[in-house]
Amino acid sequence: MLTINLSNAKSFVSDEELASYLPKLEDADRKLREGSGKGSDFLGWLTLPEQYDREELTRIKAAAKKIQSDSKVLVVIGIGGSYLGARAVIEFLRSPQYNLLPKDTPEIYFAGNNLNADAANEIITLIGDRDFSVNVISKSGTTTEPAVLFRVFRELLVKRYGEKGAASRIYATTDKARGALKTLATAEGYESFVIPDNIGGRYSVLTAVGLLPIAVAGIDVDALMDGAHGAMEAFKEKGLDNPAWAYAACRNALLAKGKRIELLACYDPAFRFMAEWWKQLYGESEGKDGTGIFPASVDLTADLHSMGQYIQDGARCLMETVVHIGRSNTRLRVPDDAQNLDGLNFLSGKDLLEVNEQAFRGTILAHVDGGVPNMVVNLEEKTEKALGEMIYFFEYACGLSGYVLGVNPFDQPGVEAYKKNMFALLGKPGYEDRARELAARL
Amino acid sequence: MLTINLSNAKSFVSDEELASYLPKLEDADRKLREGSGKGSDFLGWLTLPEQYDREELTRIKAAAKKIQSDSKVLVVIGIGGSYLGARAVIEFLRSPQYNLLPKDTPEIYFAGNNLNADAANEIITLIGDRDFSVNVISKSGTTTEPAVLFRVFRELLVKRYGEKGAASRIYATTDKARGALKTLATAEGYESFVIPDNIGGRYSVLTAVGLLPIAVAGIDVDALMDGAHGAMEAFKEKGLDNPAWAYAACRNALLAKGKRIELLACYDPAFRFMAEWWKQLYGESEGKDGTGIFPASVDLTADLHSMGQYIQDGARCLMETVVHIGRSNTRLRVPDDAQNLDGLNFLSGKDLLEVNEQAFRGTILAHVDGGVPNMVVNLEEKTEKALGEMIYFFEYACGLSGYVLGVNPFDQPGVEAYKKNMFALLGKPGYEDRARELAARL
Repeated sequence: MLTINLSNAKSFVSDEELASYLPKLEDADRKLREGSGKGSDFLGWLTLPEQYDREELTRIKAAAKKIQSDSKVLVVIGIGGSYLGARAVIEFLRSPQYNLLPKDTPEIYFAGNNLNADAANEIITLIGDRDFSVNVISKSGTTTEPAVLFRVFRELLVKRYGEKGAASRIYATTDKARGALKTLATAEGYESFVIPDNIGGRYSVLTAVGLLPIAVAGIDVDALMDGAHGAMEAFKEKGLDNPAWAYAACRNALLAKGKRIELLACYDPAFRFMAEWWKQLYGESEGKDGTGIFPASVDLTADLHSMGQYIQDGARCLMETVVHIGRSNTRLRVPDDAQNLDGLNFLSGKDLLEVNEQAFRGTILAHVDGGVPNMVVNLEEKTEKALGEMIYFFEYACGLSGYVLGVNPFDQPGVEAYKKNMFALLGKPGYEDRARELAARL
Repeated sequence: MLTINLSNAKSFVSDEELASYLPKLEDADRKLREGSGKGSDFLGWLTLPEQYDREELTRIKAAAKKIQSDSKVLVVIGIGGSYLGARAVIEFLRSPQYNLLPKDTPEIYFAGNNLNADAANEIITLIGDRDFSVNVISKSGTTTEPAVLFRVFRELLVKRYGEKGAASRIYATTDKARGALKTLATAEGYESFVIPDNIGGRYSVLTAVGLLPIAVAGIDVDALMDGAHGAMEAFKEKGLDNPAWAYAACRNALLAKGKRIELLACYDPAFRFMAEWWKQLYGESEGKDGTGIFPASVDLTADLHSMGQYIQDGARCLMETVVHIGRSNTRLRVPDDAQNLDGLNFLSGKDLLEVNEQAFRGTILAHVDGGVPNMVVNLEEKTEKALGEMIYFFEYACGLSGYVLGVNPFDQPGVEAYKKNMFALLGKPGYEDRARELAARL
């Protein structure tokens, strides 16, 4: 099971200070479990690993099999929480090079998460004349980025396969009953999966939102859910022995001491998009009411040679959380070199895992010496089960942490601001007043 | 030519406040041009676009042609500044999907920027039995990450092509005279290119460090240098009409007002690694002596659905710099939909570029309303010339900005701390004392 090590934060936050967060944590935990806090309409993720719809998971796996059998490419259309989780899990468990590596599952491209023509046209080029399917993911069906790109790829499907053929290759993950996409899915007969009403986008990776693309990539979704379920049970414990409670307490205590920025670090480059997923989870949950820890991330050891200088010696407003993975999936020995011009024969025959491990240990001590407190989240290995544990850990700790901070961790009112301006500038009916207002400013 | 627009920062920093930075900027500019400031041994980048070694550039282009003709894959081995610039330029001008897209140039993989076995083994798998070459980039040849991975890929080359065949497929970018890699290159007869003594890693993208991989990717390196040269001439102007002076003044003025974090944003996902390059340039140049703006980045509009909430409503310690690109390289029209269930027919027939442009304009106003000052750096288009201008702009502005802040923008003493600990923990000869010290702490 996932563990946390706070020993390298203890010179910044004492045990007494951590313990002083217990009443707030107990209150936060109660709010989550009783549904008595702000945003309590969005707590479905808390018990999801136990209470998910088994029948739907069976349909997800069957749909994944069908896509694997009739498609060389799956285009996943979604933005924010309808994009990051699936991409993150696929890159972490399969590879950031998933689409390039030899495999017997379809290539997977993510569209509709931006409005850039070059990026969209590239996906069309990459599909070429190969068979493809589309998984469109949107609660409402009206969010601009995915809706526009769904129009593009749906048109492509219809041209290639006809209306009926296209409909059999479109999988809609959307509201169970309402909205533009649900209406279309019902009318056209798309196979549909549900975005539960009580789970927000950034908490949705273990619903159909994440699970269908993840299953198409050949990842064992049952093991992923089992991992999350194990964490759900383990993290019911009250007190600072619970890693989620400890993490929530420590990062809030560090924020109170001026550590405004949290760096999530990992020594495996496949983690890059898991960090992006984490940034949405924490940034969107806590970044409101003029407060919240600013979430950032680094790829190590790579970024020790870019952001390392700042981490070591820059403004002392940083805390660091390292996701430490117990072992890599493969091994690679450092070759011996009789000449030894590089002076590295002291590493000859060592597995890269050990070199990476000592880089990790040495870096933590260096950063602590430089004034950056470190929290270490330990995963046993890079597997579905361990990742399921970590996903649940970060979700639950985020709910706790947000309540401890005093915000509603489950809303995101600030996301509407740019949309309204964009609609006004694009001439959407109903936005005429704002359009006039903006025109005067531009 | 690149321009800057500060109109959306003016409600946070007045013209008078900006003008108050003029004496410091004049002093900073003098230090750069006279070489009279701290770190003045590392100012080669300032006149590089004019004074680069033409003969070497001819050899770089010839080497690129040879690699294109005899290799399906190029493995580029380097870390930090010996990695980020080339990857960033290739992803931006070709594509983040460069290796997947149809092309008549070799696939390019970056190794030696981490110590992860899975990442290295994947590159070996991706090479498969195809012909490949290696460009190893290291000033000393002893930096752990690239040196270890160079051992791995050199062994692979020797196994496949023999000692002599391997030597003809290894290109060393290193010191002109000294160091482990230069010694090896001379002994083995590798074609070598020079990392100039007076250009630090983060400023080296327009030297052989960046230019060889960039040329292999089929990018016009002459046009890139021409762009930089144009910027070098244009940005000799003194005063706040010079975009680099204006940028340096504005970001320092905003830092003085508590805007501790600078977000670099772009509405083209191909920019992701240019932002990583920028983070090294600014973070490593300014993050020292307990100060410096913390550099972070977002991909828009994607991250408006993840970090957007924080930017709009979180802790008010952010400034935002948007790299705005005048046009995309391709076009894509929003299809019309007779049913219009998504309500987006007001966009029908519009080019995606226009939709993206209004998202950009609307977002800036939303962020300013939320308390985030915005600076906009305008590139005319996504071309070699425009990118060359931008690279020089950010380099020069960084030198100015660091001197205005009062730090040495050209050293990176903090990068050594983790290395020393790592060597001690790995048992490197000479690190026994530190090893005992660390063992006591662990």
